Amino acid sequence: MTAELISVGTEILLGNIVNTNAAYLSEKMAGLGISVYFETTVGDNEERLTMALKSALSRSDILVLSGGLGPTADDITKETAAKVLDLPLYLDENVKSSIEDFFEKRMIHKITENNWKQAMVPEGAQILFNPNGTAPGLILKSKEGDKTVILLPGPPGELKPLFEEQVVPYLEKMTDGVIYSRTIKTFGIGESMLEDAISDMLKNQTNPTIAPYAKTGEVHLRVTAKASDIQEAKKLIQPICDEVSKRFGKNIYSMDENETLEESIIKILQNREWKLVTAESCTGGLLAGRIVGVPGVSDVFGRGFITYSNRAKRKILEVNKKTLEEFGAVSSQTAKEMAVGAAIAAQAEVAVSVTGIAGPGGGTEEKPVGLVYIGCHIKEKNYVKKCMFSGNRQKIRESSVANALGFLRQCLIEYDELA
Amino acid sequence: MTAELISVGTEILLGNIVNTNAAYLSEKMAGLGISVYFETTVGDNEERLTMALKSALSRSDILVLSGGLGPTADDITKETAAKVLDLPLYLDENVKSSIEDFFEKRMIHKITENNWKQAMVPEGAQILFNPNGTAPGLILKSKEGDKTVILLPGPPGELKPLFEEQVVPYLEKMTDGVIYSRTIKTFGIGESMLEDAISDMLKNQTNPTIAPYAKTGEVHLRVTAKASDIQEAKKLIQPICDEVSKRFGKNIYSMDENETLEESIIKILQNREWKLVTAESCTGGLLAGRIVGVPGVSDVFGRGFITYSNRAKRKILEVNKKTLEEFGAVSSQTAKEMAVGAAIAAQAEVAVSVTGIAGPGGGTEEKPVGLVYIGCHIKEKNYVKKCMFSGNRQKIRESSVANALGFLRQCLIEYDELA
Repeated sequence: MTAELISVGTEILLGNIVNTNAAYLSEKMAGLGISVYFETTVGDNEERLTMALKSALSRSDILVLSGGLGPTADDITKETAAKVLDLPLYLDENVKSSIEDFFEKRMIHKITENNWKQAMVPEGAQILFNPNGTAPGLILKSKEGDKTVILLPGPPGELKPLFEEQVVPYLEKMTDGVIYSRTIKTFGIGESMLEDAISDMLKNQTNPTIAPYAKTGEVHLRVTAKASDIQEAKKLIQPICDEVSKRFGKNIYSMDENETLEESIIKILQNREWKLVTAESCTGGLLAGRIVGVPGVSDVFGRGFITYSNRAKRKILEVNKKTLEEFGAVSSQTAKEMAVGAAIAAQAEVAVSVTGIAGPGGGTEEKPVGLVYIGCHIKEKNYVKKCMFSGNRQKIRESSVANALGFLRQCLIEYDELA
Repeated sequence: MTAELISVGTEILLGNIVNTNAAYLSEKMAGLGISVYFETTVGDNEERLTMALKSALSRSDILVLSGGLGPTADDITKETAAKVLDLPLYLDENVKSSIEDFFEKRMIHKITENNWKQAMVPEGAQILFNPNGTAPGLILKSKEGDKTVILLPGPPGELKPLFEEQVVPYLEKMTDGVIYSRTIKTFGIGESMLEDAISDMLKNQTNPTIAPYAKTGEVHLRVTAKASDIQEAKKLIQPICDEVSKRFGKNIYSMDENETLEESIIKILQNREWKLVTAESCTGGLLAGRIVGVPGVSDVFGRGFITYSNRAKRKILEVNKKTLEEFGAVSSQTAKEMAVGAAIAAQAEVAVSVTGIAGPGGGTEEKPVGLVYIGCHIKEKNYVKKCMFSGNRQKIRESSVANALGFLRQCLIEYDELA
């Protein structure tokens, strides 16, 4: 079974927004074991959308369209799809009352006439009620029954829940069986090195399949199995997960798709009832920013310091003046003293520090742009890691944050093993 | 003249990466006054890429392809495009020696055989030498001369400089005349409100054109004119810029495409020789993170405080215990005291603070998730703004950061006007 995506929206063609829906839907479809061979973006234009729909119907079984379902005259996705599939539209009373409900909850009592356009539904459509917006999603079938056309609203906050809660079960039924995935999340091993180390497993894979996904500093492996029931699927996946764990044990921080690296760290700290503090120079708060992104972090993280100037490093973190003079602000000595100083200032068991040269200026032959030191203090122990990152200022800072988290986790585990 | 984009790469179809190249190229093409009507993504598959190329050639004048130019057997973009256009490949000695140079600079002396694949060039191609990678870009012409096919490497760090430095001048020549854009960057006015307020200018626009682009908290207006020379183009644009300035003067923070909101603030502070300090609760360092993103910020910004817990707010920023008890951590009083305390602690003239409820927990009827207070201290004056943001934790935090910057700029200007 093959699928393709059609994104509808002139704002995408103008570069006004980045098409994150396409990436989201692609990943989800791959997770369902459905191959996506084409992705097309067209503007809110009937003629060109018709052209895109006809080509797609000629070569794929499932079409997933996003965008263009809103109330304005620009929004023509549903009308065009219905026309191409030759399905007449009718006013659906259930959809109409769900739109009324939506507005009532938001205490809007005057509903403009164009909103009822969204209650028009192509004959035979399956309606995907949308709790987060007024435009419902729709699943249409071609008259011959061999093609499925799924229409989803464009805003990601509406599209994602509709897809996960209503489209996934529908597609699972279509694919005849259960599809089950697990994501193995690793840190500190490059994508090509990882692929190399599991090349025997990647070769000739059919069921389960293994797909690597690279993020900054991380590589995720998604293992997907297809089976008649969930138990069977889990049974197929288990040996793969075990083998990967055996090969990369220390690099795996989670086997839960929704758990981030920072969440895995917060969990470790919560279990030990330890406090964490950050001390940042070149990252300027981005590291703490990721940590505070974890809901309920307050029992572990209370404060962080941004010490961009040497003066701030001395005054707030009590980094030695001599250390700064002798070794410089970007040195393993300074990274260490920053972490120790932060731990003392915050009375925390654990501290992580970052100091580096993010560029574009400030580099020397001896200390080039991209040189970053990460310090880690855990109770009485100190750890420092030297890194060389490439790219522009933003990329160097992002790599620094990712690696600070990765190093912190590694130190926490190492400390535990020695204890 | 119409164009379309074809992105080549199975990793995009798997959702492994978000297609930011498409958004970048779309925006650039719009800026050149060239309409993009279709964007297609296909995998590294000859049959399907051929299909995409043929449809695109049948309906558009210019095709911009990205990705699939690398050295591996998977990379088939150039070979497929040459086949479709019926252009034989030859080994180009100049490209070969530029690849040798590239490796030599990186002190790699053993070049694998597959790299020479990248020196194969379709007959008649214009070569776009690539200083950031080994695969050159290429501009091909159909034998009839009516179609232009531009091939660019996939990595954004290679694609962007090639496009800006070599493709833009080429397309400008093709469009017969000069295309000149200016971007008017506004903050604090919604996209629909702004569009409404300039609807008279947006209506029937042909030359110059005006296109609004919304970012978090910001709306950018790009004004693009086509003329026989640059002077003429600037003359066409000026009255539009003047009129927009007249209508939204205070909301405009820059007329320079490359200047960010934080950069415009840093500039104001540099001019006044003032220091800035940040005090963040729910944003947890993201605000300072954006400020430190500006190269050369060190003469203005030396330190920042992340005070997530009440204890940290009291201890580091000397927020009154009574204030926290009586009004709570999320209140205008606390926001004000955070800013004042940070200014004193850092001996800075200017301080900006953020305190709010980013959720998902912690909201009450009186203080719901999304409630955020922004404080601003400038010398002897204090300003506080109350905001209500929607969305998840991440979105609320991003909106908080954007609005803290917008509010800070507004306060700096207001202070100046009163002085």
